[in-house]
Amino acid sequence: MTCDSILTNIARNISLEPEEVRLFESHLGFRELRKKETLLQEGQLCKAISFVDQGALRAYCLDKHGRESTIMFAFPDWWVTDMYCFINRKPAMMFIEALEYSCVFQLTRDGLDELFTALPKFEKLFRILMQNAYTREQLRTIENLTLTAEERYDRFLEKYPKVAQQVPQKQIASYLGITPEFLSTIRKNKSRASRS
Amino acid sequence: MTCDSILTNIARNISLEPEEVRLFESHLGFRELRKKETLLQEGQLCKAISFVDQGALRAYCLDKHGRESTIMFAFPDWWVTDMYCFINRKPAMMFIEALEYSCVFQLTRDGLDELFTALPKFEKLFRILMQNAYTREQLRTIENLTLTAEERYDRFLEKYPKVAQQVPQKQIASYLGITPEFLSTIRKNKSRASRS
Repeated sequence: MTCDSILTNIARNISLEPEEVRLFESHLGFRELRKKETLLQEGQLCKAISFVDQGALRAYCLDKHGRESTIMFAFPDWWVTDMYCFINRKPAMMFIEALEYSCVFQLTRDGLDELFTALPKFEKLFRILMQNAYTREQLRTIENLTLTAEERYDRFLEKYPKVAQQVPQKQIASYLGITPEFLSTIRKNKSRASRS
Repeated sequence: MTCDSILTNIARNISLEPEEVRLFESHLGFRELRKKETLLQEGQLCKAISFVDQGALRAYCLDKHGRESTIMFAFPDWWVTDMYCFINRKPAMMFIEALEYSCVFQLTRDGLDELFTALPKFEKLFRILMQNAYTREQLRTIENLTLTAEERYDRFLEKYPKVAQQVPQKQIASYLGITPEFLSTIRKNKSRASRS
């Protein structure tokens, strides 16, 4: 097992000296997950932020009727956690499950705090990661408020072409906040329009 | 005019030496806005991030039919900008208007980059600001996906009790992603329930 994937991800925003790489690696955990295994369960203390090395994961939460809503997907080179609960050391509000065999690197909340103190350049890295995550969520809010379900599905296909192939339609529907039946109608209309 | 409000906000997360305060202040702009004046217009290059010193603002965008959707409100001690466009130096996707007479401090994108270089502790400050903004948006996404409109309105009242008194109902409806008529029905049902 090498840490190449996470080091490449980091190197896009900060550069580390060899001894800094060693310090960083000493804080990294590693987890393998079988398909359908959960990385995090609702109610569990959310202790770590994960970086996807291999595989595919999905974060979702349940409403009071037990219906799943997909919060986000995560693929290789993505970071994923229940950020609010991770930052505030609270029990998780969501589940994160492996959609297929997956491997993740993990940093605990305490490990990350130690890195911030020892290597302040990690503040820059996480400032940029948080900034990207925030702008992604803000765009999603704007799209949810201003676009029709059809338009949101089109944007989703443009942004995440691979996701559309990898995950079941009902999970995409729950990400878009629509029923699987409605997504099926949208897809039928699209394929009809592309044939005519 | 003093910078007390913004310095107090910053001091919650980082501490600045007197000469660092002077450097920071040298990068600050200041704007006064009359009621209904826009701080940012869709299509305009989004050059600055603003900190609300006084007043109240609202960020909104228009869909293709010209309907407004409220992205966020901003009150004293809040930061506001079209973050995606500010970070990526792109034309704004949203409008930000003053709901009443308002004053804001502003940092330009270049000014902020200079601060990050000169005073790396600003990386920490903005890491925390971005983190808070991201977790707020993620909670909103979760609430939009899992709660009913009634429940979202209740959460809104809990989180922003003052907003509910200060802004028109139709703007709250557009923040919640529902029609003003539906919000009016929710409010009637609530007041009926509280009387019975």
